[in-house]
Amino acid sequence: MAAVSIVELGPRDGLQNEAIAVDLAGRTAFVRALAGAGLRRIEAGAFVRPDRVPQMAGSDQLCAGLVGDTSLQAAGVRLSALVPNLKGLERAAAAGLREVAVFPAASETFSRQNLNQSVGEALVAAREVCTEATRQGIAVRGYVSTAFGCPYEGDVPIAAVARVCEALLAAGVHELAVSDTIGVAHPGQVRDVLATLMPVVTPGRLALHFHDTRGMALANVLVALEAGVTTFDACAGGLGGCPFAPGATGNLATEDLVYMLHGLGLAREIDLDALVGASAGIEAAVGHPLPSRCYRAARAVRRRA
Amino acid sequence: MAAVSIVELGPRDGLQNEAIAVDLAGRTAFVRALAGAGLRRIEAGAFVRPDRVPQMAGSDQLCAGLVGDTSLQAAGVRLSALVPNLKGLERAAAAGLREVAVFPAASETFSRQNLNQSVGEALVAAREVCTEATRQGIAVRGYVSTAFGCPYEGDVPIAAVARVCEALLAAGVHELAVSDTIGVAHPGQVRDVLATLMPVVTPGRLALHFHDTRGMALANVLVALEAGVTTFDACAGGLGGCPFAPGATGNLATEDLVYMLHGLGLAREIDLDALVGASAGIEAAVGHPLPSRCYRAARAVRRRA
Repeated sequence: MAAVSIVELGPRDGLQNEAIAVDLAGRTAFVRALAGAGLRRIEAGAFVRPDRVPQMAGSDQLCAGLVGDTSLQAAGVRLSALVPNLKGLERAAAAGLREVAVFPAASETFSRQNLNQSVGEALVAAREVCTEATRQGIAVRGYVSTAFGCPYEGDVPIAAVARVCEALLAAGVHELAVSDTIGVAHPGQVRDVLATLMPVVTPGRLALHFHDTRGMALANVLVALEAGVTTFDACAGGLGGCPFAPGATGNLATEDLVYMLHGLGLAREIDLDALVGASAGIEAAVGHPLPSRCYRAARAVRRRA
Repeated sequence: MAAVSIVELGPRDGLQNEAIAVDLAGRTAFVRALAGAGLRRIEAGAFVRPDRVPQMAGSDQLCAGLVGDTSLQAAGVRLSALVPNLKGLERAAAAGLREVAVFPAASETFSRQNLNQSVGEALVAAREVCTEATRQGIAVRGYVSTAFGCPYEGDVPIAAVARVCEALLAAGVHELAVSDTIGVAHPGQVRDVLATLMPVVTPGRLALHFHDTRGMALANVLVALEAGVTTFDACAGGLGGCPFAPGATGNLATEDLVYMLHGLGLAREIDLDALVGASAGIEAAVGHPLPSRCYRAARAVRRRA
């Protein structure tokens, strides 16, 4: 089986959805600990308005510090950050990042509620970011939010997802992250969506992003692996959640993903014990038990030992 | 795909491992609510020593009452209970049960710690139960504990699991429930174990029993479904745990299993909303939030609505 890549989103999608804003020292230490566990793609921050998302305040300073970290450089860690528009891209570029991410949605109502833009307007903004980023040699990842369901509209037609994917690829994104923003996707649906998307997306350019709200995330990864997808998003400890998804228990936990992948002979470069250590550090900072089942089992085993 | 059967263990494996002993009225109501949700195989109690397992005290009265319940009879609900020996079988038969379950282990140390018997001694006891049960026309299910790992010995050889399975089949069990007692199994391991077991077990006689300690349970079910297994154990709400497994968060939750199966077009006879209602009732009785992700998401959606 082809090598599997994990895109670690704990410092961004995870912390962004926590009630407590972790300070810059805590976020920096978290990213370093994640890199120390062997993770090589880490989304570290978001260049959004700090009055709207205080958890991501100071992403400029955070990212600049991480970009200049020689141990991360030596390890070949790819850092990225979320940018909603050209202004965000400018800040990311000023911090020295060589990768950013845009995040249009596949459903109109979510797009208007979350971005205050129609899907079409969000795609225009994403294209502007892609054009300017490409000019500067900066890679762009394109999230496709609500690809498996919308908190307002319910089912989202696969054709709508495919249209957003195609628009982002045409705009120049190097990778699509097709996202189950509210954690409703199940393996049957993942198979259906992939049957439509795989033929139109260049192999290796499709990543999947699951939330574990209904406990389906790993089963979804499994069917996606079987379909040939090799890149998956995850958050250490299962950090996060989604303010739009009642009961959301966070992103797929990196520990749970790594445990399963190790059992399949994949992702052996990730040190699960070190990852648990990284999560333990951030658990103390966010002030509540992290939901990852593997993390909690590992901590319980350690306490008993 | 063949029809899938769920064996609901909430009233037994679930409640047996809860700190609070639920009273008979609560346990009776729980079984009725589970049957009302469409579950057709329910393990209702255990004929073990009440001084050792107070949570299962009164299983005689509980099971006799359920056996005599005309609405459960009319729905065709198959009730069963755990029996460690001939004495337990006698109590189960007196309560009117037509199905019981024995539970040897695949690893010596667990067998001695949990049953105070060697694996060989436990198999002799299981054979005695099978012989007498068969004489009385009572079906016997055979759990194979620690089939994917032992809390004392670690890895358990697949050959040891196969030996216990073969001994139980030779003794006359109608079904094997190969069990990941401590929740360490991952999909790669499940594929390996099934590759050994499927050729030696009559199709339809193999059930799998997963705990969700490391979040792998549904992914394990998925690979087992692909391998042709059609019977899975689960506990409503993700009740339970295992006193031998640090950090154990309970059995595979029936809600999570049903959500995935529904997405695959399976188990459509189960009413997920009614199941959530059954779990809500028992959650109040056990006094802590149930861990099932689907259950919690459903409750959060209801609260918001």
